[in-house]
Amino acid sequence: MYQLNPPNRILLGPGPSDAHPQTLQAQALPLIGHMDPEFVRIMNEVAELLREVYGTKNQLTLPMSATGSAGMETVFVNLIEPGDKALICENGLFGVRMIDVAERAGAEVTVVNAPWGEAIDPAKVQEALAKDKFKVVAIVHAETSTGVKQPLEEIAKMAHDNGALFVADCVTSIGGIPIEADKVGIDAAYSGTQKCLSAPPGLSPVTFNERAVDVIMNRKTKVQSWYLDLSMIAKYWGGATRAYHHTAPISSVYAIHAALKLIHDEGLENVYKRHAVTGLALQKGLEAMGLELVVKNPDHRLPELTTFYIPEGIEDGPVRSRLLNEYGIEIGGGLGVLAGKIWRIGLMGHSCRKRNVMLVLAALETVLSDMGYKCEKGAALAAADAVFAGK
Amino acid sequence: MYQLNPPNRILLGPGPSDAHPQTLQAQALPLIGHMDPEFVRIMNEVAELLREVYGTKNQLTLPMSATGSAGMETVFVNLIEPGDKALICENGLFGVRMIDVAERAGAEVTVVNAPWGEAIDPAKVQEALAKDKFKVVAIVHAETSTGVKQPLEEIAKMAHDNGALFVADCVTSIGGIPIEADKVGIDAAYSGTQKCLSAPPGLSPVTFNERAVDVIMNRKTKVQSWYLDLSMIAKYWGGATRAYHHTAPISSVYAIHAALKLIHDEGLENVYKRHAVTGLALQKGLEAMGLELVVKNPDHRLPELTTFYIPEGIEDGPVRSRLLNEYGIEIGGGLGVLAGKIWRIGLMGHSCRKRNVMLVLAALETVLSDMGYKCEKGAALAAADAVFAGK
Repeated sequence: MYQLNPPNRILLGPGPSDAHPQTLQAQALPLIGHMDPEFVRIMNEVAELLREVYGTKNQLTLPMSATGSAGMETVFVNLIEPGDKALICENGLFGVRMIDVAERAGAEVTVVNAPWGEAIDPAKVQEALAKDKFKVVAIVHAETSTGVKQPLEEIAKMAHDNGALFVADCVTSIGGIPIEADKVGIDAAYSGTQKCLSAPPGLSPVTFNERAVDVIMNRKTKVQSWYLDLSMIAKYWGGATRAYHHTAPISSVYAIHAALKLIHDEGLENVYKRHAVTGLALQKGLEAMGLELVVKNPDHRLPELTTFYIPEGIEDGPVRSRLLNEYGIEIGGGLGVLAGKIWRIGLMGHSCRKRNVMLVLAALETVLSDMGYKCEKGAALAAADAVFAGK
Repeated sequence: MYQLNPPNRILLGPGPSDAHPQTLQAQALPLIGHMDPEFVRIMNEVAELLREVYGTKNQLTLPMSATGSAGMETVFVNLIEPGDKALICENGLFGVRMIDVAERAGAEVTVVNAPWGEAIDPAKVQEALAKDKFKVVAIVHAETSTGVKQPLEEIAKMAHDNGALFVADCVTSIGGIPIEADKVGIDAAYSGTQKCLSAPPGLSPVTFNERAVDVIMNRKTKVQSWYLDLSMIAKYWGGATRAYHHTAPISSVYAIHAALKLIHDEGLENVYKRHAVTGLALQKGLEAMGLELVVKNPDHRLPELTTFYIPEGIEDGPVRSRLLNEYGIEIGGGLGVLAGKIWRIGLMGHSCRKRNVMLVLAALETVLSDMGYKCEKGAALAAADAVFAGK
């Protein structure tokens, strides 16, 4: 009893992704105190490296001491006061979650929808903005439940023209596709460590520009969450005094430092290119196997997370169990209305490699064929390989 | 730039404490998914091991995915609905924090105080309870800002006679002194990993008995925090379906598993005895050096966290800097009204060892003497050694 010997998986679900050995080793480093001058130096470097992947110069850029969903909550509880109006774009589970979180923070929420699997239409946002004035317009950049990549720039501009702050959920985009927060006009964003950053789950990097910080610092009411109150946390992560707020999760900060340095060393452009090519190869492979992608518009497909329908006559659970038990491969099932209907394959961070594409295609072809699914043998591998070869 | 090579400290502050090498190594294990059957098994073992240190059979016992202060917030946002009355005992910074957190959750708070450094007087609690009816009575078991150990049993009974739930902050008590939640009558408690459990900071173990769970499940309003909403989290940590809520911090769960197993293997009685003897040795040593302990009543002194006044004419900062720079030893300064006036030495978990007592006494004697403090040379070491020798 009480054995800790986790199996050696290949994590190709919607996150966590595989962490690089250097990132895992960082977590084995001895602890130091959360007020240690040396820890402060590490914190500063983490903030600087985060600015790089966010594409921002925002001073208030830091990892919150909890997972991505707490980052979402951080943004809403800090920006929203009871009765404030928020326009939330919903085209997947994480949009739904945003609505719930914003309402719990006291927001009056107006929703703009798109069917799951499609991007939000800027015209519908414009329509909603024409009817009311909002404090916040929020959208998911990379919808983890559907695999949709949302173009942001146009909607950001619309939000600003309305006088609203523009908020982006970057949990699955950070480190996988460019965010360019400053260029796009993102006023506040949150993300996670366990997707394309390839650090273990546990932190949520957030960033707020000066407009957003002004809103926080001029609130009339206290932030309802003590733990997520940025007016206090900002004094620990920045400023001269480094006032104690809560005990920072030392090992997790080591891990994100190591993970971000790996990205920095590879170079952001190379990282994005690797995700783009690897994701496309998987998508071409799946299509060559006769499988149908959920996201119809190729421009709105995330390279780091591919969603596709479970073929007729094939059951969800048994296939994923066989991938897990025979291959040690984890892929994701569907969430919400898509549960049991789709699979999700993540190629994120350290998991985003040619060998994983070829392996998961080989495994899928073998398992599905064994279950009676008809497809042309080897077509998937050939199609994927052609993408890697630049053909 | 971007170097991650933390110095090798000896952590004798108020937490984090040193983690055992096995605990750190657990964090270097490869990640698995948060819905992986093997991870579910690990979660179950963590819950079972936590029940052991909490002294409870409570089904709802789990580590929240954030640090100790988020555990405090978890208890209040789940138990309190706007307008509910809470009686909060305050005799240190973490009592003050409780008041803030409870008020942000909408509680009408009544406060019972004691001077910092003293325990809460049950008679004063009785007095407050005689005047009103409360939903919750909350108290800090081990006040990290003062070193006070609070006897709980009498106040727990008073709370129950009032019809209130009894809540205990066990952040610095868990794994250091017995909690015995079921025996004492604690209805809900929260704690941290980075003190006497000697795991890295990042999780907050909580426990709720059936009375408390009934309150949560029969709320009229939604919990204001989505991230900390136990009605959802309970379905991930227990029950047949394991419904996804947020991505659990895999490595941190490995770490707490390893840390709890070390405690389980040593045996709780031995762990408590080690803390009791080691803490007493330090306290006798400091007194032999002529230093004055903050907590006057020996029965109310925490063995795992000793507080003492900075002697007249000696400055706080320079001493702690010398301990850090010359010895690699971290001790804590004072918080709130005690800032600059006291030092806090933690002997928690893996840090709680004879060699650390002797080293910190030797270092303190040397540094303080060098700064002009007069004391009998060697008296501290002799007094401490006598305690270890059972004299």
